[in-house]
Amino acid sequence: MAAPFRSSLRLHSVMRLPAVRTITTTSHLRAAAKPYFPDEPAAPKMTTAIPGPNNQKATAELNEVFDVRSLNMLTDYTQSIGNYIADLDGNVLLDVYAQIASIPVGYNNPHLKEIAKSPEMLTSLINRPALGNFPSADWAHILNTGILKVAPKGLNQVFTAMAGSDANETAYKAAFMYYRQLQRGGPQTDFTEQELQSAMQNKSPGSPQLSILSFKSAFHGRLFGSLSTTRSKPIHKLDIPAFDWPQAAFPTLKYPLEEHAQENAQEEQRCLQEVERLIKEFHNPVAAVVVEPIQSEGGDNHASPAFFRGLREITKRNNVLFIVDEVQTGVGATGKFWAHDHWNLETPPDIVTFSKKAQTAGYYYGNPALRPNRPYRQFNTWMGDPSRALIFRGIIEEIERLGLVENTAVTGDYLFAGLQRLSQKYPGHLQNLRGKGQGTFIAWDTPKRDEFLVKAKGVGINIGGSGLNAVRLRPMLIFQQHHADILLESIEKIIKQL
Amino acid sequence: MAAPFRSSLRLHSVMRLPAVRTITTTSHLRAAAKPYFPDEPAAPKMTTAIPGPNNQKATAELNEVFDVRSLNMLTDYTQSIGNYIADLDGNVLLDVYAQIASIPVGYNNPHLKEIAKSPEMLTSLINRPALGNFPSADWAHILNTGILKVAPKGLNQVFTAMAGSDANETAYKAAFMYYRQLQRGGPQTDFTEQELQSAMQNKSPGSPQLSILSFKSAFHGRLFGSLSTTRSKPIHKLDIPAFDWPQAAFPTLKYPLEEHAQENAQEEQRCLQEVERLIKEFHNPVAAVVVEPIQSEGGDNHASPAFFRGLREITKRNNVLFIVDEVQTGVGATGKFWAHDHWNLETPPDIVTFSKKAQTAGYYYGNPALRPNRPYRQFNTWMGDPSRALIFRGIIEEIERLGLVENTAVTGDYLFAGLQRLSQKYPGHLQNLRGKGQGTFIAWDTPKRDEFLVKAKGVGINIGGSGLNAVRLRPMLIFQQHHADILLESIEKIIKQL
Repeated sequence: MAAPFRSSLRLHSVMRLPAVRTITTTSHLRAAAKPYFPDEPAAPKMTTAIPGPNNQKATAELNEVFDVRSLNMLTDYTQSIGNYIADLDGNVLLDVYAQIASIPVGYNNPHLKEIAKSPEMLTSLINRPALGNFPSADWAHILNTGILKVAPKGLNQVFTAMAGSDANETAYKAAFMYYRQLQRGGPQTDFTEQELQSAMQNKSPGSPQLSILSFKSAFHGRLFGSLSTTRSKPIHKLDIPAFDWPQAAFPTLKYPLEEHAQENAQEEQRCLQEVERLIKEFHNPVAAVVVEPIQSEGGDNHASPAFFRGLREITKRNNVLFIVDEVQTGVGATGKFWAHDHWNLETPPDIVTFSKKAQTAGYYYGNPALRPNRPYRQFNTWMGDPSRALIFRGIIEEIERLGLVENTAVTGDYLFAGLQRLSQKYPGHLQNLRGKGQGTFIAWDTPKRDEFLVKAKGVGINIGGSGLNAVRLRPMLIFQQHHADILLESIEKIIKQL
Repeated sequence: MAAPFRSSLRLHSVMRLPAVRTITTTSHLRAAAKPYFPDEPAAPKMTTAIPGPNNQKATAELNEVFDVRSLNMLTDYTQSIGNYIADLDGNVLLDVYAQIASIPVGYNNPHLKEIAKSPEMLTSLINRPALGNFPSADWAHILNTGILKVAPKGLNQVFTAMAGSDANETAYKAAFMYYRQLQRGGPQTDFTEQELQSAMQNKSPGSPQLSILSFKSAFHGRLFGSLSTTRSKPIHKLDIPAFDWPQAAFPTLKYPLEEHAQENAQEEQRCLQEVERLIKEFHNPVAAVVVEPIQSEGGDNHASPAFFRGLREITKRNNVLFIVDEVQTGVGATGKFWAHDHWNLETPPDIVTFSKKAQTAGYYYGNPALRPNRPYRQFNTWMGDPSRALIFRGIIEEIERLGLVENTAVTGDYLFAGLQRLSQKYPGHLQNLRGKGQGTFIAWDTPKRDEFLVKAKGVGINIGGSGLNAVRLRPMLIFQQHHADILLESIEKIIKQL
């Protein structure tokens, strides 16, 4: 299992290939076929309709105590391996959804097995620390060899958290504290008596009416602060009180991009202008702008690097923080370790949040002034979970050993080319194909989306949707050319059934 | 390590003992001295001043990448055992703070070691599921033999979460959805177009201006919704936007309780009246009342069972939900598994939240109507962590095997009696001693509190505070009479140094 892709030269040559591949590419792509998981099945194996009888019975039992209406498939994780997920009826499916984009290096990854059996894991599981008060002796080492080893360029600090929602919310809290500190004139300025008292009443100025600007169709989590920036679907938001925070339009690009360059550039300018106008005019002052590199939950909406560079400029110019939510895009799936690595920013984002494929969560930052000016302002009992930080370190080791970021770049290009061929053949079924050059982070729109997802199970593919009409591919980083071939063939089968 | 306390008869007889113990109690209390952790040190061992040179060096290293200003003590968990916590300089302290009340059955508990090495743990660590979509085949079994085995009376459902803050916030979300469903006339009533559209704008009626009523000095977490119900200290809340939600006075009881019965009853009545008035009059309608059985972070403030029964009656009468936050009080420390077991409620709380000593988190409920009427309304990617649910199951097994709830009741009574003697001897240093009959969940006020906490380390005791003036005891459930003797002796030493 040596790393098959290391040369950036080769990578560039791949990216310049025409969309429909020719025979010249096969030699190095064949190298990709050396499987990372030699024990994986060669193909999906379907023994019953889904859900089968065992799954139905177990679901009814679980329903007694746990809401199962969002249940997709009860899973036998002991029989799942690599890219393949097993149910309780002997069905084994190729999984390109991967626990909502959160499994990076395969089910039952052998290296993670070793990590799970290590003495460090044992002690972190049974002696869970209150990390802000009593971190373990090796916490700095675990951070430096794991979470911080892959810190985005320019950011060298981390606040650890539990999952995407609280990663974003603690980032927002850091932004609010920073904003008010600037207003006060620096970290040394004391809080006023009025601030101290009004904060206890949930009232301004102590609890100021500041805001976070997010984008239409954005998804940043489902707790009260993060949900106030989430604008994906009503079902995520209905009946839950929300803060009066602004939303800007996110670019609606037309595909194929090559044919709509000027229109799309204008659309992005329009959205950038709206951002700047809201920052200047919104009645609750904007402390930060939060954005996903690719709006994932909200329908796989992309924008160009120029758009994001524009956002960085606007936030700089207006003294508001620029928070990049890499919860779904981070950790290798886009062909770069962080999706914002595609942007060539002049200055890094102020804060980058992570979770999902990291199997732990938190936010990176670089500016020391983003540490609140007093202890216990950004604090909670656990502040994350070292056992999950150890898993992330193991994931990073696997990514480096196998060259998995390069793999998603190359396999993604291969897969995208195949999907382009399908979209030409079935233009009614594969619309607005997007994610070119973004690794395997690919999506398209299809009119019978929900039916597509259900029928996919029937041909042995576990696949997810986003937004109202999109099919989103979120395979693991170990998804290879031979998996892409199965997937492409299966998509054609599904289309023929629709 | 047989269970030394099983007879409820014995337990009752202990609880009727006079506050200052007599010789008649020693025989069965001696039984308690059989140590749960035979390999524990006999006493704290201090080799350097704290922090010692190794701790100082390691703290400086950690400070490069991680905020250490709330750091209490870098910890060598491999050398910590049972009730004893070790630092990097060979100091070993008796730990009655226990990772902010979150370690239940001792550092390096042998049974938890076995759990951590089990095949179930291995698979849950390396194949982390999106629990709402792809739960493992044995998830119902893990719930039924763990989290739900100890469900509060009358509650048989659970929504799992990551930590205390999101346990509370998802409970609040459930309350808001339930409240609006009642207003709509039931689960079948569709959302209006106006609701669907306004929710996406963070505006009423889709995002309604409803509220959660909490109490002054309450602590329910530090994310945006939970922080809006937290009223502990300004430093927890400053600069963070908050919802306009109401707070009622929490009773300020006078001690000793026996001497202030009538005054205290009046005080509780006053607070109950304020709760009912706020429910009837507050401009943002109250969907739920949330309360801690003992306000922990906010200063260890107690109220009587009659007060909580009154709250239950008021919430029933006014059709608002009654949420009991057992994040700090739950899982055995008060001499009952759940602190609200002390109240003899006629009907159970609507929702009980848990975290900390459970080492996982979530909320219990019983009313099926508290499951939102549509899937994906209460949902997130991970919805907890099965590996931590397995640890909780192991903790429950230890609690049952060793009779640890009974132990906290008996040891707590013993400890309380000793503290009463000290408070008579040093009335200026131990004021408002509280927590009688509440297991080891004991606290007192002292004028030089912060100095007390620092000096405690010098005599080998790791101990925490709450509120502004309180010393709070949060020993583990395996804290026994011989530990109490060391603690009492040490407290006297500290007082003499002040």
